Amino acid sequence: MNAQTVSRAVVLASGGLDSTVTAAVARSEGFELSLLTIAYQQRHAVEVQHAGQVAAAMGVRQVVVEVNLRALGGSALTDTLAVPKDRTAGDRDQGIPATYVPARNLIFLSLAAAHAEVIGARVIYFGANILDYSGYPDCRPEFIRAFEAAVEAGTKAGSEGQRILVRAPLLTLTKTEIIQLGLRLQVPFHLTHSCYDPIGTRACGHCDSCLIRREGFAKAGVEDPIAYALP
Amino acid sequence: MNAQTVSRAVVLASGGLDSTVTAAVARSEGFELSLLTIAYQQRHAVEVQHAGQVAAAMGVRQVVVEVNLRALGGSALTDTLAVPKDRTAGDRDQGIPATYVPARNLIFLSLAAAHAEVIGARVIYFGANILDYSGYPDCRPEFIRAFEAAVEAGTKAGSEGQRILVRAPLLTLTKTEIIQLGLRLQVPFHLTHSCYDPIGTRACGHCDSCLIRREGFAKAGVEDPIAYALP
Repeated sequence: MNAQTVSRAVVLASGGLDSTVTAAVARSEGFELSLLTIAYQQRHAVEVQHAGQVAAAMGVRQVVVEVNLRALGGSALTDTLAVPKDRTAGDRDQGIPATYVPARNLIFLSLAAAHAEVIGARVIYFGANILDYSGYPDCRPEFIRAFEAAVEAGTKAGSEGQRILVRAPLLTLTKTEIIQLGLRLQVPFHLTHSCYDPIGTRACGHCDSCLIRREGFAKAGVEDPIAYALP
Repeated sequence: MNAQTVSRAVVLASGGLDSTVTAAVARSEGFELSLLTIAYQQRHAVEVQHAGQVAAAMGVRQVVVEVNLRALGGSALTDTLAVPKDRTAGDRDQGIPATYVPARNLIFLSLAAAHAEVIGARVIYFGANILDYSGYPDCRPEFIRAFEAAVEAGTKAGSEGQRILVRAPLLTLTKTEIIQLGLRLQVPFHLTHSCYDPIGTRACGHCDSCLIRREGFAKAGVEDPIAYALP
């Protein structure tokens, strides 16, 4: 445990819009940040570089951990399954999508807990959101609470009475509200990447993640500063 | 989800003595096994090959997932910290040792849960033991129960009412009892690797893990079939 004057926090930072706004929230709450990015052999591995650009723009530390979830498969993001395109909000409410990565947030939060334990952080910031993706079970508040309990029971920090808590400040915000919050916090949206299925390095514009992002910017009345490969 | 006649189980298989006996128990209970080995840039990476040899000897599938826990550090097993040697049982009772890897079993079980979800397994076999290593918080039964709850809340399987359970059949056995159980189940002990700090590919004979193994075989009145670099 290092001597600390400022409290540290780990932010799970994918380079996407939500986790970048989450990092800005964590900074606004006074924490010294360590951005943890997971390179999991995802189809959209370009997001790892975006996360690095975000960390550099914010002037904070980034740690990258590689974990080969492609060896496990089972998701459109790590396997040869197709990424769904041009789905409506109604389509997206029809259960867990093909882009669900088995136990992904459980794995990512576990790595974040390990990082928090090593650097003496007591908080993990996590950009989960339940509104836009009702289908992802690992974004639900009951999962977050259960995860905190597992960390308390199964880590050195927990056994020494130092709980590691998970904060998900975007959990119940709409995408438009997240964008508005990011604008107030001067988030570098131009460096973020949301697309599940980029064409070269550019966003496809038609996967669930692109569609939700574009709708969010449109409703916020603000131009999305990133380029899309397709109109 | 694949059609199944025989139920599948995931076994966290390190190539060590405990996880190999655990795999043998899982097989004796009638499951079709998938041995999941985590290559985490551990100092004793040779154990990954031993796990493969065990899988081959048992005639079961092995899946290896790489996760670079060295990027997080904080342990004698993944960092430049020294591995303690020639400690007595009394020494080992003095709290959490330097070989504790932050949140390791939380990370490993999370990967096992992902694998279980993909292959339709409902059980994870886990070679945790609380007697020899009272210091590791992530081997305690309360951690295992909390982890199961997190998996239930945060996975597709859990949200569909299909719980993934963790069985730790060695949890309260002594090392001698584990060895005796393994002998009954014809475990290929000669292929297992327990050492934290191998010299070349041979066990050092003096780290906690080697000492506990050697004591276990001595008390069982059976010769340990592996070679040690130092007497």
